[in-house]
Amino acid sequence: MQTQNKRIPVAVLGATGMVGQRFIDLLRDHPWFDLVAVTGSERRAGQRYGEAVTWRLPGEAPAAALALPLLASDAPFDAPIVFSALPTEEATVIEPLLAVRGHAVFSNASSYRMTEDVPLLIPEVNADHVALLARQQRERGWAGMLITNPNCSTIQIALALKPLADAFGVQRMQVTTLQAISGAGYPGVASYDILDNVIPYISQEEEKIARETRKILGSLTDDDTIAPAPIAISAQCMRVAVREGHLACVSVALAQDATSADLIAAWRDFRAEPQALALPSAPDPVIIVRDEADRPQPQRDRDAGGGMAVVVGRVRPCEILGHKFIVLGHNTIRGAAGASLLNAELLVARGVVG
Amino acid sequence: MQTQNKRIPVAVLGATGMVGQRFIDLLRDHPWFDLVAVTGSERRAGQRYGEAVTWRLPGEAPAAALALPLLASDAPFDAPIVFSALPTEEATVIEPLLAVRGHAVFSNASSYRMTEDVPLLIPEVNADHVALLARQQRERGWAGMLITNPNCSTIQIALALKPLADAFGVQRMQVTTLQAISGAGYPGVASYDILDNVIPYISQEEEKIARETRKILGSLTDDDTIAPAPIAISAQCMRVAVREGHLACVSVALAQDATSADLIAAWRDFRAEPQALALPSAPDPVIIVRDEADRPQPQRDRDAGGGMAVVVGRVRPCEILGHKFIVLGHNTIRGAAGASLLNAELLVARGVVG
Amino acid sequence: MQTQNKRIPVAVLGATGMVGQRFIDLLRDHPWFDLVAVTGSERRAGQRYGEAVTWRLPGEAPAAALALPLLASDAPFDAPIVFSALPTEEATVIEPLLAVRGHAVFSNASSYRMTEDVPLLIPEVNADHVALLARQQRERGWAGMLITNPNCSTIQIALALKPLADAFGVQRMQVTTLQAISGAGYPGVASYDILDNVIPYISQEEEKIARETRKILGSLTDDDTIAPAPIAISAQCMRVAVREGHLACVSVALAQDATSADLIAAWRDFRAEPQALALPSAPDPVIIVRDEADRPQPQRDRDAGGGMAVVVGRVRPCEILGHKFIVLGHNTIRGAAGASLLNAELLVARGVVG
Amino acid sequence: MQTQNKRIPVAVLGATGMVGQRFIDLLRDHPWFDLVAVTGSERRAGQRYGEAVTWRLPGEAPAAALALPLLASDAPFDAPIVFSALPTEEATVIEPLLAVRGHAVFSNASSYRMTEDVPLLIPEVNADHVALLARQQRERGWAGMLITNPNCSTIQIALALKPLADAFGVQRMQVTTLQAISGAGYPGVASYDILDNVIPYISQEEEKIARETRKILGSLTDDDTIAPAPIAISAQCMRVAVREGHLACVSVALAQDATSADLIAAWRDFRAEPQALALPSAPDPVIIVRDEADRPQPQRDRDAGGGMAVVVGRVRPCEILGHKFIVLGHNTIRGAAGASLLNAELLVARGVVG
Repeated sequence: MQTQNKRIPVAVLGATGMVGQRFIDLLRDHPWFDLVAVTGSERRAGQRYGEAVTWRLPGEAPAAALALPLLASDAPFDAPIVFSALPTEEATVIEPLLAVRGHAVFSNASSYRMTEDVPLLIPEVNADHVALLARQQRERGWAGMLITNPNCSTIQIALALKPLADAFGVQRMQVTTLQAISGAGYPGVASYDILDNVIPYISQEEEKIARETRKILGSLTDDDTIAPAPIAISAQCMRVAVREGHLACVSVALAQDATSADLIAAWRDFRAEPQALALPSAPDPVIIVRDEADRPQPQRDRDAGGGMAVVVGRVRPCEILGHKFIVLGHNTIRGAAGASLLNAELLVARGVVG
Repeated sequence: MQTQNKRIPVAVLGATGMVGQRFIDLLRDHPWFDLVAVTGSERRAGQRYGEAVTWRLPGEAPAAALALPLLASDAPFDAPIVFSALPTEEATVIEPLLAVRGHAVFSNASSYRMTEDVPLLIPEVNADHVALLARQQRERGWAGMLITNPNCSTIQIALALKPLADAFGVQRMQVTTLQAISGAGYPGVASYDILDNVIPYISQEEEKIARETRKILGSLTDDDTIAPAPIAISAQCMRVAVREGHLACVSVALAQDATSADLIAAWRDFRAEPQALALPSAPDPVIIVRDEADRPQPQRDRDAGGGMAVVVGRVRPCEILGHKFIVLGHNTIRGAAGASLLNAELLVARGVVG
Repeated sequence: MQTQNKRIPVAVLGATGMVGQRFIDLLRDHPWFDLVAVTGSERRAGQRYGEAVTWRLPGEAPAAALALPLLASDAPFDAPIVFSALPTEEATVIEPLLAVRGHAVFSNASSYRMTEDVPLLIPEVNADHVALLARQQRERGWAGMLITNPNCSTIQIALALKPLADAFGVQRMQVTTLQAISGAGYPGVASYDILDNVIPYISQEEEKIARETRKILGSLTDDDTIAPAPIAISAQCMRVAVREGHLACVSVALAQDATSADLIAAWRDFRAEPQALALPSAPDPVIIVRDEADRPQPQRDRDAGGGMAVVVGRVRPCEILGHKFIVLGHNTIRGAAGASLLNAELLVARGVVG
Repeated sequence: MQTQNKRIPVAVLGATGMVGQRFIDLLRDHPWFDLVAVTGSERRAGQRYGEAVTWRLPGEAPAAALALPLLASDAPFDAPIVFSALPTEEATVIEPLLAVRGHAVFSNASSYRMTEDVPLLIPEVNADHVALLARQQRERGWAGMLITNPNCSTIQIALALKPLADAFGVQRMQVTTLQAISGAGYPGVASYDILDNVIPYISQEEEKIARETRKILGSLTDDDTIAPAPIAISAQCMRVAVREGHLACVSVALAQDATSADLIAAWRDFRAEPQALALPSAPDPVIIVRDEADRPQPQRDRDAGGGMAVVVGRVRPCEILGHKFIVLGHNTIRGAAGASLLNAELLVARGVVG
């Protein structure tokens, strides 16, 4: 467990974008981490962060962050922990470089999520996948390491499935998502496309939900690989006129008989290592089940647990697969920046980094 | 077939509400029907329609309608055909009264949709269910008759399923709907509830989709009842910040093997009696299949075929049920007022009424 | 000044509505006040607040409030300070009754705002109007008292004008407001009326802005009346698709020459009694001036100072009246519940109540 | 007057953008004009228009347009009339080139609106400014000519002021606009910036309203220049979450005494040359005055007169300037593509081009 009398310097890559700003916001007054470096586009390198960023979150950016110089993505800096909000193509090139240089890189990018020796980590779900890191460092000869978090729509689904998988086994899942505009970054979705409209397509999202969920719920084998969970998954992903908060309508087929009450009990009883360790960003409870007929809603529930909890509701029988429910998560907190942050906290608490 | 040299007087019940206004709008310049009577709330009876209504559709209400006196719901009037946009409780009482008096009542209310001798009619899907009317009149001793149309979210789903049922057999359907605010009537959904939000619940909607779809696709038996189609159906219904146009994300299991191309061909080839008869409100084609990755969208596709066509897209394999796609329909035109209108046109063309 | 070792019991009238919920939310963990009673509609009296309310603000209602029994509006309770979020007609009857019974009533209703012996109070603007209360109690023989706060669109305008009135004199003001839907209460504006739309009319709002502003900025005369400020005011009030935060586009004619920089300096230098007393709900600064070309915005600035600050921007010359700027305030916090709360804090700090 | 037995070939520059698509849509079935050429970005030149465009208007693009090859902006084509929806920088270079080549260029770009010998034309307002064209051709030696239409927020204001200027004289105008997102083109405003928000700034818009209005209402002098109308104008421009339709809140000081009824009469009596000539795109009436307290609204009134009429409402005294009212116009029809089209129709009817 982290001693907490030594603060750890951290850096944020791609700090001016939508997810980058969330990192900056969540690191404000963090009890363990000190933000010491931010990177952004070449073009703006050398400016103060405060000059380079157009702050789009409510309230003000933390003053300390505003004063930091914006570094180019590949500039050297002195921080053992790095949070990456880089776009995919840049992440593909830069993240391994930083791992070579000895940084522990916690990445929100999709580039290496499916790479065999890279954990796709949700601390409450598959903390044992951390074991991949030893293999990663050994085989690649990296001084540092690379840890990824899932896609913003996958993470809450995986969290909701975990207690069901443990208690009853999950065999099949059908899911339709209603996703917030912030999930597309900035400027992202044009207002003319989404006002009084739904965009019924998000590139690669349905595939990501299927393959990432299977890896996350997969099991670590003796030779340090992940055997994907044998769950059939079918997703339909829709973009709706909501600022923050992805809602997923899920149907599941379980391996064992269970009632809606059994599912609810499994969720309500669920606690995991981050809660046991009381990690700074760990929500407790991590899964909230609401009884009202019309909850969760993005507007009213996305900030539950500081945006780190997921909220389940409308648990009821499904005529096709057995059970259905809805689950909501804050896509740029639990689904992105907060996910990376919690991953880092877990590894610090375990003494793996820091 | 209607000779078209004799125009038929029609009345609209509940003419000031959201669906009532759609009836008034669609009857403007109708080639067969003359609007001669409108009813509304007791409280406003005696006013001109133009005084009683707050017109909420784009453009102006038809001048002729504005001049009509608003009748109380139970006032007598002289029109063989009646369109009902009454709220459920009123419809329950008044519609049978009008059938007794000899009117052919085309109702958008849910009161009698599931009644054994009342057709739940979509002319392109189950025109043979019109046979129930003979039994209805005989057993009830009605001079008139009562015909209903489905719920606004059911109708487009049933239309999309029909060619699949005919060609391949439909065994199971999972559907998630993203429904427009106009589906809740006026004032309906409070703006504070839906702006930057999703309401993940619509009372009774999921049940209606299941039972109405089974009746619509059911078969007429020798004793003039409908044997519901043996399709397992599971629905999740969401309200989104869209003005008009319900979008449904559908997965289906078919009885026979088929490819996505086979489904598309079945939809594109689909024509039915309303198209053959060239009924005034019949769209042709009735099912439009779009090839773009991100269509149909409520904003761009809801007015297809004057709001009477349904638009299918994103046809692709489903890992669970075999096939998935999305389908969009205009909920207050094809899903309500236009549905009743087309039902009336069919019965006029067949010589059953008028 | 309040000694703070004695906590003061308070009640909220009309606690289940939009503004009532804001009161409940703002009283959570208040350093001076203990919520001991809530009232609501007759029909729900006897239920727990938690059963009676549909909580519409983000997050959960405070647990202590949820457990309180909901009283009828005219039920007796034991709390020296009462916050009223009653609708106008009820407020007209009940607020004087409570003042007779000895309560200090802090009202958000419009019923008595323009009454001669009732302060229309903004602590930063016209704290001297508190002197009306002595007259009010004397002439009416009330054991308690009645203090009102302005309309939700007036308060921020009056706050922005105050430093200008003090430094330069204000002669004329033209204002167009873009007001949030929460200003209309719940259910308030129908979603079908406001989505992809503007409603260019709010009943009585333009008149309220004119007459309330003149009273607030008016001067207390020797005989304890308020001489309205001789400012010509013209308002146009629009409703827009924003959840919270009223934006006002203001042009002013000043009595003395001044530059934009002079106005900005007047705002930035402005501090008043609530800031000097460090009242719990007093923002400091109370007026924030932003330099960006496109601020303030409802989304990004409404929560400044916990929703109690007002944010000014786009200060520039006006070709007609001399100066123009925009000003934003949170309509249900600074413009409603927070306004009443700050009024109460001022009177407690001054030893007038408590 | 156009003989109408000879159809005129026309081209659209910048045909794939927001305004370009409006041109294409409005030219569908035009009684005088045949669309024969479309230009777009270099990068897409050579594709069919149907491949190059992502059609964002409701319904389908006209089939004939979809089949046209997309030309590069500077490619030669054979069409006497050219409609330009080019971005400013491109328009600056290309429009004069086309005028040299002999085309009559009707431009929606801002590049040359304030140029001394270029008419800034609204056929109902300043048709006499067409006289500038003779000077333009003479002095520049152009075989063709260049005619501009005003900014999308100016045009409706100028139309509303015209009858007042004629009847009473206009001395001062204060205006606040609530502008639709389509006014910013595509992708234009990011959805994350405008959903549940107002953006209180549109670059250069306030200046354009002031200077363009003065030119449009200016008078043609003997030496073929325009003396700007001596009207003091102050504008504040806001972007709101509306798809189409700019709303302006106007206060005016008139030179002569008048009542609200006088203003309404002036608007209702107003007809101009396009109405007299019954030009294909001319609305009649061009100014609609609504009596309801809450009209015009973008949603319900933007399509009045096919989007070519402007709708005035809430006419009432202003405490500062004398009169106030609101006026609405469709920004991409009357405020852009339709404006250019009507300009071309006027010049064809007068025999100046075609």
